[in-house]
Amino acid sequence: MKVSVLKNVMGANEALAARNRELLDRSGVFAIDLMSSPGAGKTSLIIETVRVLKSKLRIGVIEGDIASTIDSDRVRKEGVKVLQINVGAECSLDANMVGQGLAKLPLKDFDLLFIENVGNLICPAEFTLGEHRRVVVLSLPEGDDKPVKYPLMFTKSDCVLLNKIDLAPHLEFNTAKVKTAIRGLNPGVKIFEISCKTGRGVRGWCDWLVKERQGIAR
Amino acid sequence: MKVSVLKNVMGANEALAARNRELLDRSGVFAIDLMSSPGAGKTSLIIETVRVLKSKLRIGVIEGDIASTIDSDRVRKEGVKVLQINVGAECSLDANMVGQGLAKLPLKDFDLLFIENVGNLICPAEFTLGEHRRVVVLSLPEGDDKPVKYPLMFTKSDCVLLNKIDLAPHLEFNTAKVKTAIRGLNPGVKIFEISCKTGRGVRGWCDWLVKERQGIAR
Repeated sequence: MKVSVLKNVMGANEALAARNRELLDRSGVFAIDLMSSPGAGKTSLIIETVRVLKSKLRIGVIEGDIASTIDSDRVRKEGVKVLQINVGAECSLDANMVGQGLAKLPLKDFDLLFIENVGNLICPAEFTLGEHRRVVVLSLPEGDDKPVKYPLMFTKSDCVLLNKIDLAPHLEFNTAKVKTAIRGLNPGVKIFEISCKTGRGVRGWCDWLVKERQGIAR
Repeated sequence: MKVSVLKNVMGANEALAARNRELLDRSGVFAIDLMSSPGAGKTSLIIETVRVLKSKLRIGVIEGDIASTIDSDRVRKEGVKVLQINVGAECSLDANMVGQGLAKLPLKDFDLLFIENVGNLICPAEFTLGEHRRVVVLSLPEGDDKPVKYPLMFTKSDCVLLNKIDLAPHLEFNTAKVKTAIRGLNPGVKIFEISCKTGRGVRGWCDWLVKERQGIAR
């Protein structure tokens, strides 16, 4: 029974995600599902990206959290429209929650929408939300074994951001090893090394984002 | 329907956890459910603890992971008996998985059992396994806002280990603020600041563990 309940839930999620995607396409909004472990730097990445791209693109943000509005408050200070979704006892955003969020947002005012998922390297990989691209942030302090230990997340992402490279001198993190592991799971994936603290590598990521967005039929 | 399925699952889990606890008590094994985000340092903590306590206590380990045997292989090198449980699509160990694991272990040969949960700051807080104490590791690079953002984990733990304090000079992590937040959720909780890299604080944690174990009726 557990399996059939799960199948129904996942089937319903897929259908709602397709509806979200249709709405996003119709509104001309390019949407990113941004995922990671807690504290890998998703919110900092959004803030740095907004600072680079806000003169070019109109950006909106959905913040998914178990509790609190800490991330929304940080992002809102950048002058960006933010919608907070608190998921309570769930371990990920799902297409239903995002659909309800999209209905509250002025989508015609956005070119780019970040959907910051709940901090979790497992559940968010299982739910498609209607996004155009899936991006996972892996911070160096988490260790270079994470792709092997959490393969689904790295298999299903279009882009991996290796964040907090400023801490590299203080860690034993093998960048070549982690890239090999990621590409072993997902040969076509894009990988950037960045530091949201120093800004290093952020421009390359922003260029990729702009280009990916242009590749989507409007 | 979702709610009633969930209630049944949780009720079944509680019953199996009680059975695990009974078996552990009967076997004289003190069990720790060790939880954290991915990469916070659970496995390193087990290794450092084994090195300090192996002359005093006979230690066993259950390793819970989505995939791979990376952690088991590391711990086994310390001469410790390890059982690997790969949870596949689940986001936490549960009492059923642990019960199956306990049945395979020579419990009479252990004084202390570490159950290293899946790296996840959400789901593991929801499942009791039959453990005597719940311990959460929060590593400094994850940020000092985590207790507010993931309150259940910090509310339900008996002990919080602030790990990777060796990185403090390179981070903006407010230790006083995080302790206030944790104690706001959970006034009686024990908090240690440690570094599994330098060994700082590990002895205090080990002393606590030995004392807590002695407090349990045999």
